[in-house]
Amino acid sequence: MKLYDYGFSSAAYRVRIALNLKGIAYDRASINLIKDGGQQHSAAYKAINPQELIPTLEVDGHAIGQSLAIIEYLDETYPLPALLPSYPLERARVRQIAYAIACDIHPINNISARQLLKEMGHSDDEILTKWYGYWIKRGFTAIETLLSGSTETGRFCHGDVVTLADICLVPQMANAYRFKVPVDAFPTLVRIDKACREYPAFAAAAPEKQVDAG
Amino acid sequence: MKLYDYGFSSAAYRVRIALNLKGIAYDRASINLIKDGGQQHSAAYKAINPQELIPTLEVDGHAIGQSLAIIEYLDETYPLPALLPSYPLERARVRQIAYAIACDIHPINNISARQLLKEMGHSDDEILTKWYGYWIKRGFTAIETLLSGSTETGRFCHGDVVTLADICLVPQMANAYRFKVPVDAFPTLVRIDKACREYPAFAAAAPEKQVDAG
Repeated sequence: MKLYDYGFSSAAYRVRIALNLKGIAYDRASINLIKDGGQQHSAAYKAINPQELIPTLEVDGHAIGQSLAIIEYLDETYPLPALLPSYPLERARVRQIAYAIACDIHPINNISARQLLKEMGHSDDEILTKWYGYWIKRGFTAIETLLSGSTETGRFCHGDVVTLADICLVPQMANAYRFKVPVDAFPTLVRIDKACREYPAFAAAAPEKQVDAG
Repeated sequence: MKLYDYGFSSAAYRVRIALNLKGIAYDRASINLIKDGGQQHSAAYKAINPQELIPTLEVDGHAIGQSLAIIEYLDETYPLPALLPSYPLERARVRQIAYAIACDIHPINNISARQLLKEMGHSDDEILTKWYGYWIKRGFTAIETLLSGSTETGRFCHGDVVTLADICLVPQMANAYRFKVPVDAFPTLVRIDKACREYPAFAAAAPEKQVDAG
């Protein structure tokens, strides 16, 4: 297996966590999203992932794009530890939380959206305060309500076992901290994020531990 | 089962297609995204779905938000017809296409993002041409390359059987047509969309067939 990865890509961060949790050894190719105008736009990488996004996982000559497609694949082929609960209603709850981050916060704040806002005349500061912070606050407010209002929430987003929801939460929290978006209003998220980061699988996947995070 | 639905919500459209394909009867509650400043923001609906987004599926007293979480749940509990292939690598391909739409086009163009752009000083026309059209074109370009370059593409996105990828494609194509975004450069997508819409399950789920689409 080979992961096309970048330290500060939070979608790639999710996959690093999943690979670590499963104990899967993998090769790594660094695709620097900043250098050379974004190495994800090179012809060579575009042939592997036409979306020109990180991550891609190469498996037996197949290239899988989209972090959540990769993680579902890993969970189906390396079942232990399971990243989704057994019962459909519980799996739905975990996926709901994961998608609330992976669909409704992350892509709207992604580098390509911020670049387009810049082209449309907005300053970095305006993008950060009026856009980036807005989507994190809006998304986290909903997820905090979902989590704090449910007895299904435990040490982690769903019970006391790490799931896909936590794998999405931790990189999104890292983005909030990195861009200094206040998180005091989200005590459940702060608590779960901390609990996750105590695990070696999460700690080793952190952006600052990757060789190309600088 | 009860679906909180709105005719012009393309995320809800996905769930309507899935319910129809599975032949599941359901009750429907209309949540008008335009009327009353957006009925999804009412206290009553917020208690059901803290993200204040459509759709939500109520099942046995549980409220599932996020269209893809709902569809995966339906596929796990009503296995036939299957909306994902059997083999993990094929499931990954279908999910990759689905998420390329559901994460990287749809939420960035959603009504709340367009509203925020308006608050940031952009005209409707500017939002349509510089933003909305941009994300559809960018996403469709990548998906057209993925599909046209693969022998796994058939009558539909993956082989000759409808999958989650088609369920995401058709509502996104409907948005492109509705907002007059040119699709000539995406012949594979145009062909698959047409093939899908010939099926009663897709046709009956179309926005213009819903009582609250006006």
